[in-house]
Amino acid sequence: MIVGYFQFSPEFGNKDTNLEKVQDSLSGVNADLIVLPELAFTGYYFEDRNELSGLAEDASDSNTVNVLSKLCKNYNLYIVTGFAERENNKLYNSALLIGPSGLISTYRKIHLFNTEKEYFDPGNISLKPITINGASIGLMICYDWIFPEVTRSLAIQGVDIICHPSNLVLSYCQKTMISRCIENGVYAITANRTGTEVRPRGELIFTGQSQIVNTKGEVLAHSNVDDDELVIQEIDPLEAKQKMLTENNHLLNDRRPEYYDVLYK
Amino acid sequence: MIVGYFQFSPEFGNKDTNLEKVQDSLSGVNADLIVLPELAFTGYYFEDRNELSGLAEDASDSNTVNVLSKLCKNYNLYIVTGFAERENNKLYNSALLIGPSGLISTYRKIHLFNTEKEYFDPGNISLKPITINGASIGLMICYDWIFPEVTRSLAIQGVDIICHPSNLVLSYCQKTMISRCIENGVYAITANRTGTEVRPRGELIFTGQSQIVNTKGEVLAHSNVDDDELVIQEIDPLEAKQKMLTENNHLLNDRRPEYYDVLYK
Repeated sequence: MIVGYFQFSPEFGNKDTNLEKVQDSLSGVNADLIVLPELAFTGYYFEDRNELSGLAEDASDSNTVNVLSKLCKNYNLYIVTGFAERENNKLYNSALLIGPSGLISTYRKIHLFNTEKEYFDPGNISLKPITINGASIGLMICYDWIFPEVTRSLAIQGVDIICHPSNLVLSYCQKTMISRCIENGVYAITANRTGTEVRPRGELIFTGQSQIVNTKGEVLAHSNVDDDELVIQEIDPLEAKQKMLTENNHLLNDRRPEYYDVLYK
Repeated sequence: MIVGYFQFSPEFGNKDTNLEKVQDSLSGVNADLIVLPELAFTGYYFEDRNELSGLAEDASDSNTVNVLSKLCKNYNLYIVTGFAERENNKLYNSALLIGPSGLISTYRKIHLFNTEKEYFDPGNISLKPITINGASIGLMICYDWIFPEVTRSLAIQGVDIICHPSNLVLSYCQKTMISRCIENGVYAITANRTGTEVRPRGELIFTGQSQIVNTKGEVLAHSNVDDDELVIQEIDPLEAKQKMLTENNHLLNDRRPEYYDVLYK
């Protein structure tokens, strides 16, 4: 299976330009699955809920989704992308899985970061795996990384590949995603954005360094802080089915939930 | 608060020699809390349950505990140490908290590593904090590191400092403990052993590199692979009460357990 990410710097508020950039960059790509950054078409640092509302789209009636669906159909490709989603009067920081047949699955960020809490509604969809080309994939978004429960919940449901659209401003995530892969025996594709957004609220500098990590925590591919880059990498999703760390230790079955009861309260 | 660890190479089966080494090294130490490695007095790589049984002690009637208690009394010190524990016909890979008044608390490793499953019984005591000198401490042992649920369960109960006696043979732990500190906003003291044990089952090489990590994931102190070393470090346990990563993000209160329900089944 050939997976990858496209790291780039979306232009705030300019969905057409960003869509063109993604179309140009992914045209003809030889890959099965490409992950794009969080909020890849709208930009990130919204002034308020009103500004976000003007840019968000209903995923079932979205030019962005239509364009990406055609791209997937043309190149027999799956794309996971960040997406500013409107559903009725709700606004979500979402990740969409799109394939040759169109929109397949939606995840809405359950752990909102900082000012996102002011304009996004918290996610309301369970963490669920989706199978494509025989591999089980799970979606999480950016700041979800700091909650080990997210990757864990996906791994326990059989996810092989974590797809992780991000707009990171902190520096810890990439190393912690290595821990997530080791502790769960999964692959992770963190697609981060680059560039700076100068907005009424202030300036945000995004940290790039997108990466693909294997089930043993080895970094198979990574990018630097500020380059636009399409990276593809062959992986074997079956490696994520192998959860024995030693001949006596299964990463998931060795859990003892009866001793974690304070986590359930 | 001054905390630390003593990294050394216990001699297999020679409890008196190991006790003397610890006594000599800790005598007169200016610290509040010192962490010793897992199974610090017996050694690690038991041939079978019978051999372990001959070396394990009842913590309530133990020369090892008595000697350490005197050490704690003499120097107004708390010690966390690994301990091969017998209780009736059960054998546990335990960590003890000992203070000036003697044995205070016991934790029994709930996630046994590799051949430990052949001769140790799995731990049967809840993960609970204990307060000493105003700081809440939590005990975990070696391979517990790979289960994010362990540190999380302790942090949710208010633990400030994770005390982590270890006999590590893998290389991932130290970096993952940095993630544990970041995701939970806690300190962690990983006291690993050094040296090689050549035993009937084969040879084990322990990896040292003990470390003290602060609540932001910064390594405050660390040792190399093979030196015997007593390391002390001043820390402020109150920093672990500060769980706000941004003005809008609390590391623990932002959890959304209703979305982690697959972890509870």
